[in-house]
Amino acid sequence: MRWDGWGDPGRRTALAPGVRRALSRELGGPSRTEGTGVSIDGAELPPGRLPGTARAALVAAAGPGGLRDDRGARIRHAAGRGYPDLLRLRSGRVDPAPDAVATPADADAVAAVLEVCSGHGLAVVPFGGGTSVVGGVEPISGDHAGVLALSLAGLSGLRALDERSATATLAGGTPLPEAERELARRGFTLGHFPQSFEYATVGGCVATRSAGQASTGYGRIDELLRGVELVAPAGRLTLGARPASAAGPELRQLVAGSEGVLGVIVSADVEVCQRPLTRHYEGWALAGFREGADALRTLVQAGAAPEVARLSDEAETQTTLMLSGGGTGSAVLRGYLRLRRLADGCLLICGWEGDAADVGRRRHEGARLLRRFGAVALGTPPGQAWEAGRYAAPYLRDALLDDGVMVETLETASSWSGLERLYLRVRTALTDALAGRGTPPLVLCHISHLYRTGASLYFTFMARQQPGAELAQWQAAKSAASEAIVAAGATITHHHAVGRDHRPWLEAETGALGLQALAAVKQRWDPAGIMNPGKLGSQLTAPR
Amino acid sequence: MRWDGWGDPGRRTALAPGVRRALSRELGGPSRTEGTGVSIDGAELPPGRLPGTARAALVAAAGPGGLRDDRGARIRHAAGRGYPDLLRLRSGRVDPAPDAVATPADADAVAAVLEVCSGHGLAVVPFGGGTSVVGGVEPISGDHAGVLALSLAGLSGLRALDERSATATLAGGTPLPEAERELARRGFTLGHFPQSFEYATVGGCVATRSAGQASTGYGRIDELLRGVELVAPAGRLTLGARPASAAGPELRQLVAGSEGVLGVIVSADVEVCQRPLTRHYEGWALAGFREGADALRTLVQAGAAPEVARLSDEAETQTTLMLSGGGTGSAVLRGYLRLRRLADGCLLICGWEGDAADVGRRRHEGARLLRRFGAVALGTPPGQAWEAGRYAAPYLRDALLDDGVMVETLETASSWSGLERLYLRVRTALTDALAGRGTPPLVLCHISHLYRTGASLYFTFMARQQPGAELAQWQAAKSAASEAIVAAGATITHHHAVGRDHRPWLEAETGALGLQALAAVKQRWDPAGIMNPGKLGSQLTAPR
Repeated sequence: MRWDGWGDPGRRTALAPGVRRALSRELGGPSRTEGTGVSIDGAELPPGRLPGTARAALVAAAGPGGLRDDRGARIRHAAGRGYPDLLRLRSGRVDPAPDAVATPADADAVAAVLEVCSGHGLAVVPFGGGTSVVGGVEPISGDHAGVLALSLAGLSGLRALDERSATATLAGGTPLPEAERELARRGFTLGHFPQSFEYATVGGCVATRSAGQASTGYGRIDELLRGVELVAPAGRLTLGARPASAAGPELRQLVAGSEGVLGVIVSADVEVCQRPLTRHYEGWALAGFREGADALRTLVQAGAAPEVARLSDEAETQTTLMLSGGGTGSAVLRGYLRLRRLADGCLLICGWEGDAADVGRRRHEGARLLRRFGAVALGTPPGQAWEAGRYAAPYLRDALLDDGVMVETLETASSWSGLERLYLRVRTALTDALAGRGTPPLVLCHISHLYRTGASLYFTFMARQQPGAELAQWQAAKSAASEAIVAAGATITHHHAVGRDHRPWLEAETGALGLQALAAVKQRWDPAGIMNPGKLGSQLTAPR
Repeated sequence: MRWDGWGDPGRRTALAPGVRRALSRELGGPSRTEGTGVSIDGAELPPGRLPGTARAALVAAAGPGGLRDDRGARIRHAAGRGYPDLLRLRSGRVDPAPDAVATPADADAVAAVLEVCSGHGLAVVPFGGGTSVVGGVEPISGDHAGVLALSLAGLSGLRALDERSATATLAGGTPLPEAERELARRGFTLGHFPQSFEYATVGGCVATRSAGQASTGYGRIDELLRGVELVAPAGRLTLGARPASAAGPELRQLVAGSEGVLGVIVSADVEVCQRPLTRHYEGWALAGFREGADALRTLVQAGAAPEVARLSDEAETQTTLMLSGGGTGSAVLRGYLRLRRLADGCLLICGWEGDAADVGRRRHEGARLLRRFGAVALGTPPGQAWEAGRYAAPYLRDALLDDGVMVETLETASSWSGLERLYLRVRTALTDALAGRGTPPLVLCHISHLYRTGASLYFTFMARQQPGAELAQWQAAKSAASEAIVAAGATITHHHAVGRDHRPWLEAETGALGLQALAAVKQRWDPAGIMNPGKLGSQLTAPR
């Protein structure tokens, strides 16, 4: 991965001139052309703090070639891919950075590494794909003498597939593309496609309660989790694969979402299903976001939801058209919408997957319900365009940053009856916070996941960067949105997890007693408090 | 409820002569006619141990009329409805019994009662419908000076219904029939129908991770749980209703299954759905249990499972026919099965619920798949017979006990690939354990719930009681079955919960680290260790 941005460095692109002009119009201020940035060789790095004895013990624990403390390894495990992370990397000052990177080859080696770290007072940051957008892999040492990134790259692959029971056992560090490739060979799919798909790992998804773009159909990772193995400083927890159980509280759901704070997820048993033979992605136009939300609620409560359902609000719909560069396709679409009096309408993408008969029947039923809400079919081109670009946003973010544009996303979820209020509150909070700083934003939103009882809202906001105050500008917007979410009684995160960025708002959701429970478990499983300091609940990593 | 057995005392019945003869044939030994048993007035009860100061404080905390320590109240809160409970009640010696019964009228009063109990060192047993079959409400005082039953009868009713979000807020003590009545008035259903339906409460279901007979379609209670409120000695935990969240580990799933050991569930937000307009219950015959299991696996993995699916093994099928009393219906059915060469086959009940078009389509698809496995349609009579008797088994149990027959049930779940091995192991274990004591049993089994990755097995076993050694006989069978379940790597309980009876086997499932986590949470939420001693994990209630 590009060291200071997203993805394949060869895929780095710049914004089209038309897009830059449109952004200047929308966001004000001149666009800026950053230089080529700092090269990895030019990056500043604090000196490593690993004492010699700890280093020797780690080398022994991690196994041959399992420990690195060279510049390249430390820089590449120094940050996730959130906006503050990118600001830090682009500044060329990679601080904090881990003092070393361990890459144990199996669960026993993970346990040995944790033992060394507990003994030597080193913090440990489990590192899967490094794609966290909430500061989840920031190498915070807390009150420890140093910090180790524990890469899961050595624990990868499909360990077992029980075809009869539709259950796959995947090593924690397995990248999602590898999981899908190996499952596809046997005719199966996990159906888990977050935007970070190209780099995210199975264990990282479980640790963050991830939802993929098709999770309306295939289920969130926590819903697919049947068994899990966690290596904690205090020992190993093996929860075997089970369809269901009433044997006390569900500890699998204590591991899912534990964000490296309780231990390292070395293996997961996940529900899989037959690869779909038919995939049909299509677009619909709706008169407004409210009508669209009502339509989607009706679909999901009737059991007729597609695997992928994404309804953009009016602003996101317009921006999607703008960002597509004003090419022929979008001009035709725009004209078509105008003709149908949906010029200011909302775009809905529906993705149907399954066997042909099943997809046919559900599409038919879905179309019938959507038309009741005035939806107009746009055919497959918008669906195909969405599919083609489904993992492109993080690349676009780099191009926007090059242009001096702050771009960030955040997500939440609420009941259907609270959704509109939540939407308005968050949008207003972001707009007010950024306009108040003289950088009026574009705020875009889409419904990204459907449930019978509610849905998620996924916000994207962009504003001209405030040179020299980029982080404060971001923090102001982030805080305003988070306060609005909490005030609306919604969840602070639907699928990005808590990490560093959402910590101040977790207690509003779990209550004091809830945080105390997590702190109590952490104290038993991680008595030295070495696991991923500064993440999840504030009480979890209070000074010992 | 009948004080020493199940249900409406007016519905007490005796076994038909033909059934008694058949049981004598199957189980050996003469059948016995017990007397009318001990009347509640004749029951022996240990003296109450409530100190005067504690009593006064409890009266103040529980509110007017909220505390009783008369014989009737103490006896009626002294036991659940498991086999050991019934033995104890029928013996006429009601020991242990709670020293008093508190019935607080709201969550604040629950908190006040817990505060008094923490201060005075009194154990607290939350008591919903009192239907536990695993000793979950046994009034064990542990190392405390006394034990209070905390009845949830004062916290009842539908508190809110968010129709748009298909979410109902129900007070913890709401009996399921009341919940269904109130929801039905608004056109909704929870769809939760355990065999204990007539008495079980919403909070009790959540506390035990209950599954109802239609949970294949409507979902287990833990799957329907969106929010929950728990009053613990250390404070109150309110987890608001959410469709989904990635804000750390899912604490709702720590409360679900907590069995009164962590606190009192005073309210639950649960997913509901529109009441089905069409209900179609039907029977199918399959050549054998293995073929039937394969058929059900295919159905559920194809997304074509009915709401209710129950496949009896060969022994249960025959016994069902026998217990139906050899009436005309069963004779016709038997003749029909013989004709179809399924005389030794297995009975499958499928219950389809939904709107007419949906039920029609799914039944059609289900029938197509079932026929692939040689299933023969038996029409609606077996389905209607099952529906009519769906809550009758506990009444029948009393009649069998009157006849000197031990009857007990236990349940487990496993992956599809492990199901047959689990089935054989448990059946053999029960048979060997009881035959070894000179009381060869009838062991019956059915698949009761379907999941994409596996299914549950529900065993019923009957044997002639060993007079004077009834409990030891039961314990021998129970232990043998539990050891077999653990050896097969399956869960010790699919929906009955852990309670007192499954405690020795919980650690095999959660591991030491898992139990330690629960103990750590308990210590924070219940520092004085007063909540439901002797239940769930052994480490949770170890002497302080």
